[in-house]
Amino acid sequence: MMRTRPLKVALLGCGVVGSEVARIMTTHTHDLTARIGAPVELAGIAVRRPDRVRQGVPAELITTDATALVKRGDIDVVVEVIGGIEPVRTLITTAFEHGASVVSANKALLAADGATLHAAAVKAGVDLYYEAAVAGAIPLIRPLRESLAGDKVNRVLGIVNGTTNFILDRMDSTGAGYSEALDEATALGYAEADPTADVEGFDAAAKAAILAGIAFHTRVTIGDVHREGLTEVTAADIASAKRMGCTVKLLAICDRSADGKSVTARVHPAMIPLSHPLASVREAYNAVFVEADAAGQLMFYGPGAGGSPTASAVLGDLVAACRNKLAGTTGAGESAYTRLPVSPMGEVVTRYHISLDVADKPGVLAQVATVFAEHDVSIDTVRQQSRDRGADGVAADGTGGVREGGEASLVVVTHRAPDAALSATVEALRKLDTVRGVASIMRVEGE
Amino acid sequence: MMRTRPLKVALLGCGVVGSEVARIMTTHTHDLTARIGAPVELAGIAVRRPDRVRQGVPAELITTDATALVKRGDIDVVVEVIGGIEPVRTLITTAFEHGASVVSANKALLAADGATLHAAAVKAGVDLYYEAAVAGAIPLIRPLRESLAGDKVNRVLGIVNGTTNFILDRMDSTGAGYSEALDEATALGYAEADPTADVEGFDAAAKAAILAGIAFHTRVTIGDVHREGLTEVTAADIASAKRMGCTVKLLAICDRSADGKSVTARVHPAMIPLSHPLASVREAYNAVFVEADAAGQLMFYGPGAGGSPTASAVLGDLVAACRNKLAGTTGAGESAYTRLPVSPMGEVVTRYHISLDVADKPGVLAQVATVFAEHDVSIDTVRQQSRDRGADGVAADGTGGVREGGEASLVVVTHRAPDAALSATVEALRKLDTVRGVASIMRVEGE
Repeated sequence: MMRTRPLKVALLGCGVVGSEVARIMTTHTHDLTARIGAPVELAGIAVRRPDRVRQGVPAELITTDATALVKRGDIDVVVEVIGGIEPVRTLITTAFEHGASVVSANKALLAADGATLHAAAVKAGVDLYYEAAVAGAIPLIRPLRESLAGDKVNRVLGIVNGTTNFILDRMDSTGAGYSEALDEATALGYAEADPTADVEGFDAAAKAAILAGIAFHTRVTIGDVHREGLTEVTAADIASAKRMGCTVKLLAICDRSADGKSVTARVHPAMIPLSHPLASVREAYNAVFVEADAAGQLMFYGPGAGGSPTASAVLGDLVAACRNKLAGTTGAGESAYTRLPVSPMGEVVTRYHISLDVADKPGVLAQVATVFAEHDVSIDTVRQQSRDRGADGVAADGTGGVREGGEASLVVVTHRAPDAALSATVEALRKLDTVRGVASIMRVEGE
Repeated sequence: MMRTRPLKVALLGCGVVGSEVARIMTTHTHDLTARIGAPVELAGIAVRRPDRVRQGVPAELITTDATALVKRGDIDVVVEVIGGIEPVRTLITTAFEHGASVVSANKALLAADGATLHAAAVKAGVDLYYEAAVAGAIPLIRPLRESLAGDKVNRVLGIVNGTTNFILDRMDSTGAGYSEALDEATALGYAEADPTADVEGFDAAAKAAILAGIAFHTRVTIGDVHREGLTEVTAADIASAKRMGCTVKLLAICDRSADGKSVTARVHPAMIPLSHPLASVREAYNAVFVEADAAGQLMFYGPGAGGSPTASAVLGDLVAACRNKLAGTTGAGESAYTRLPVSPMGEVVTRYHISLDVADKPGVLAQVATVFAEHDVSIDTVRQQSRDRGADGVAADGTGGVREGGEASLVVVTHRAPDAALSATVEALRKLDTVRGVASIMRVEGE
């Protein structure tokens, strides 16, 4: 049953993840052979800078010509860990045309144009796997696509970006502001020199698009995902969350609508109760909740990034792609038959926590409550702090307690309402004379 | 690409899980057809009591002749949710011989004789899937077998029995004794009328055997698993754990030995620190930690039992088995190439928390410490409570504080040592004149 001609693998990219993939492939040959059912061989590694020293990576395999490598014709599986849209998309489709299956860690490409890649893979009769594109080593795509294939997923709610979780965790545990926490994350290697993709939520939005598409058997691209980063989260927001028994997390949230006729995908900071399992996800860890009709609530937790964890996910996919090559078949591919449309953020039903600086005089609450009522937004709780009751010392740290000059703070938590109605309510509140400012707005999730 | 002849499924057993499988199969036909790539049809349901009312289960499909059903010859997949060893083993092998793949939720059979079943499936060229056999809806077997196929798993540590977790959670949160907590679990439906399989650890041991075999690519049967139930866990043990900042859980633990040349599998109550994610797994939930070389620490959490969650896992496997049937292939089967032997419990390296009732006189600690040294067991911490220092009020509840008549309590936590050495140490301690009794022994894990 064991064939002797080895399966040939081409590696595109040899950075942190790629070099770990190469290292494991060249040192764990016995295990990989046994698990695949045939030997597997690293046949070439395409890099941009061939002179860079790469510990444990066979120098004779290095090439700068990625296109020639994927066109060789004897490659069974191409592993792509370069990232970005082009030239990677062209390399992957070229690999398909030459009969290779592809294992990719490329969330940006999959979230931008997964449909094109899936169609090209189907046409070529090969596999496209990308477990490593979402949440590093945590098995998520395979469980969603295969383990839950007989179930109906209604919600995916997760922390899928380690950098922002590290920043928020520091803000929560030390009281630091955003900039200070970002500096620490950068110094410790958790944030890149240009942290935009992480802190503005682009990375999480790409993952949300991929997860929503798979979970709901439809197509979702990053352009469909409502995205808010965490650059505007303040120490005051975190303190305010604490007073509510909550913490702030940057969440990726994919929902099937109540009528089942549409889906939504969004990334934004949100308060979640400390009792929610996601609240205790610390540092750069990731965790994803999945809610399904029959399965109930499942959670998947682990390291969401890093060379070794990402390599683990890549190698799992590599073994699967190699097994399929041997069996002359392909695994479960794209499933987008529901064709459910993606609704805009305004239609998402959510809850707001709103902290207002208001004039400290009678009638303010009535005015504010009227604005909520006019927008059909129902209020869950109101907390009012005038000078007389400002005993909890929150004013001193600027988190919304009593101010000099007759101000008070009003903290309103709403019931669930369409996001458009909540957002219109906030705009109307800003126009009230008695409202001096909106100190903080944040959605509340996970209850 | 869509074929019109439906895939035919035979269901063996129609209790809590089976009726939910039947219900979903008959109501979610559109989704199942789309995900499989062909229609799937329930062709027969074998039951023992045909007259029982089964809501939503087509009566015309009911038969009492399970053997005839699996021998029909037109069945593509047999779903087995009867449980137990015989007649199920014979039914499954007969199904294989007649060309059907099998999806089973039968942990007892898989843990007793998985090798025979796997060999029969390979011989027949069909699939044997059993995600539902371990931890209900939580995807564990597929992630271990496929997602981590390129990694090296070193440890699996989990709460895999909901009944015992419910009992321990109640004991921890209410201070109840074992019997009282068991009564509550029974009243609420979390424990069966005969709770032996759960509380004596047989159920968890079967799951440990299955997980160890898959995680370490070897064969482990339930007979290889060291098993201690929780019937001897007392309120005093729980209180003692609390004083150490721990809680008590019934854990299934599968380890690869430090030299990589053997594995161990065991089920027993253990103290784990409150900071460990498993400590916060409440009620009847399950959660499993997996530690792998490259992936690091992963956790999988969710409902570990119940009709719907188990049906979710069964249906995920059913979709996979049907897809493979259509493609004319089989999925990843047994991988037992490492042939690693299973070491006995005595060779497991662990830590003990030992609570002794001792005479309250000088020299006792020296005597006790000598016994530990003679067995090459190193002491981590000792806490001694004589009458003078018995201020924390633990004596009143019998949890090991100061007693009348010149007794004191001595709580010793060891460093890691072979279980045989720890156990021999306890036996030697019992023989000391100054040791009046061993109030509690428990292993400490998860640090």
